Amino acid sequence: MRSDAGGPDLASASAGASLAPAVSDLSERELIARVRARLPPPPPSIVVGIGDDGAVVEPERNRLEVLSVDALVEHVHFDRRFTPPAAIGHRALAVNLSDLAAMGASPRLALLSLVLPPELPLTDFDGIVAGLCDLAQDARVHLIGGNLARSPGPMMIDVTVVGTVKRRGVLTRAGASAGDELYVSGPIGAAAAGLRMLQASVAGSTSDAIDERLAAAYQFPMPRIRLGVLLGRNRAASACMDLSDGLADAVHTVTAASGVGATVEADALPIDAAARHWFERSGVDPVETALSGGDDYELLVAVHPRHRRRFEAAVRPAGTALTRVGVCTPEPAVVLRRGGADTPLVRGFHHFR
Amino acid sequence: MRSDAGGPDLASASAGASLAPAVSDLSERELIARVRARLPPPPPSIVVGIGDDGAVVEPERNRLEVLSVDALVEHVHFDRRFTPPAAIGHRALAVNLSDLAAMGASPRLALLSLVLPPELPLTDFDGIVAGLCDLAQDARVHLIGGNLARSPGPMMIDVTVVGTVKRRGVLTRAGASAGDELYVSGPIGAAAAGLRMLQASVAGSTSDAIDERLAAAYQFPMPRIRLGVLLGRNRAASACMDLSDGLADAVHTVTAASGVGATVEADALPIDAAARHWFERSGVDPVETALSGGDDYELLVAVHPRHRRRFEAAVRPAGTALTRVGVCTPEPAVVLRRGGADTPLVRGFHHFR
Repeated sequence: MRSDAGGPDLASASAGASLAPAVSDLSERELIARVRARLPPPPPSIVVGIGDDGAVVEPERNRLEVLSVDALVEHVHFDRRFTPPAAIGHRALAVNLSDLAAMGASPRLALLSLVLPPELPLTDFDGIVAGLCDLAQDARVHLIGGNLARSPGPMMIDVTVVGTVKRRGVLTRAGASAGDELYVSGPIGAAAAGLRMLQASVAGSTSDAIDERLAAAYQFPMPRIRLGVLLGRNRAASACMDLSDGLADAVHTVTAASGVGATVEADALPIDAAARHWFERSGVDPVETALSGGDDYELLVAVHPRHRRRFEAAVRPAGTALTRVGVCTPEPAVVLRRGGADTPLVRGFHHFR
Repeated sequence: MRSDAGGPDLASASAGASLAPAVSDLSERELIARVRARLPPPPPSIVVGIGDDGAVVEPERNRLEVLSVDALVEHVHFDRRFTPPAAIGHRALAVNLSDLAAMGASPRLALLSLVLPPELPLTDFDGIVAGLCDLAQDARVHLIGGNLARSPGPMMIDVTVVGTVKRRGVLTRAGASAGDELYVSGPIGAAAAGLRMLQASVAGSTSDAIDERLAAAYQFPMPRIRLGVLLGRNRAASACMDLSDGLADAVHTVTAASGVGATVEADALPIDAAARHWFERSGVDPVETALSGGDDYELLVAVHPRHRRRFEAAVRPAGTALTRVGVCTPEPAVVLRRGGADTPLVRGFHHFR
């Protein structure tokens, strides 16, 4: 891990006077030492870890590598008022591990780029690092390097992950055929409900108690690592993608990449019961919200009907429910079937607007 | 490359009304298509490139992998008033390639994470991508993926690079011994002079014409890729580090990692002649400024005197001047020898202050 927050030339002093120590009270070496202190000893395949110009790693034999990068930006992807530091660190790694799962890959390495306001309390820094390192240890991911820089504005956490997969196990978005059935893992909508509940709570627009399980679904999502590995090994799936931008976006993306259409059955959607209840009480449509709500780090999987049994047997050890929610069609339209009527499936967000 | 700029929940509309198209006028798919259009066809070792949850790559046989990540943050590492878009993109990749060079590695892959204000003109987006892709092509680096997100504040560009090196060719910061001679590549100080000149120009504090060569040294630094590869192959160097935070910082870091001290000779420093002239006219000490000025993407190399000839022969094909600037000492002190007197070598910056 290197520190490279810019020279003094472009620096603007922006330290907030406070009694609690902030990241600006420590040197980069001290901050990096705090990260290293949380890491287990690296395996022999990591030749050079944190602390040099780059990390040096021995590749795994007979495996392909899968690489992904994803950034969490304060005020865009999280709000510090209701996302505790450990959740920020956890989510920054989780969103990336979810991408590896969607490719059928086993996670292996991570690099962490932190762009932090200098007045960030040191306890928050420690919390972010702890949240990330705890998930890394659970997922057997080794943090091998990174970068620390100063932010003159929002906090940004960029994580790069490397996983491995056998050549025959690679899952892409582009392999679905007409007739393939669409499955989604886990219940959906819990993270969207948790986020809305936390937002309403800090806005003071609700006096309800927070449902801790829904809040945790947003704050500490568990990527479907084991499921992804099983899907990669078994080869029963024809296409796969994670639901980071919501189920509707995933269906649109997989069908577009595969050159097919799809029909999604509203009644089949495995909407979390407590989330559905909360959506109904809040006056929003549970189906639309669960379809378009992001932050569900579940997987959308396309499976040829011929492979259904093999698929069901293969994923059983993951202990994750997989629900058939629709089917790929030869016609290019992507529709939601609800109460006997077909309407165009809601589009994903336009992120920059 | 995935787009993941967050759901609508945390979004705040911040589009600036303008006639010129901005990144917010395009969908992420359209923006990603603009990046892909600049890329050469990928080699067969890239199994899945930009456009899925992750990239899939075949590792090179009998090589170790070197990974590094580095972020450029607006207002901290660059100022858009005097850093044209192509220079931002170029520098974001160059700082990472410099890290690979310092490890003795050949660059191979890059991932690009862009966090952009929505009002960024599309022409600036194109310029940033062009600057990065042009250097990638020169350096034979394949852009295999990335991420696009919206920034509610400064622009941030995070690049992850992967290079490869033979096990015996890995260079670290930790291998120097007492008696090793310290060499630095290229002239130093040109980038620091260029930056100060550009800053003075936008501040209106100078009426001098910009020295285009010095400005380019700051805006379009050329990482020492070829030199790094030759050093890795030849094994004459005992330690190596790049000068991203200045020569003084590099000497402190290499000596601390190696458990030695050093004496640096002020008179030996290969300070760029035009930079020296400009520093003198500006009333700053050329030696101190060249030592502490960052943005020189040169290499500091430690070489045992016994390997001097082999080292000189090995690096000749790179066509880069290497100047002996000091020697490692058994005493832990790191000093600057100037006019017969030894004083402690200036410390690097504390980036978060």
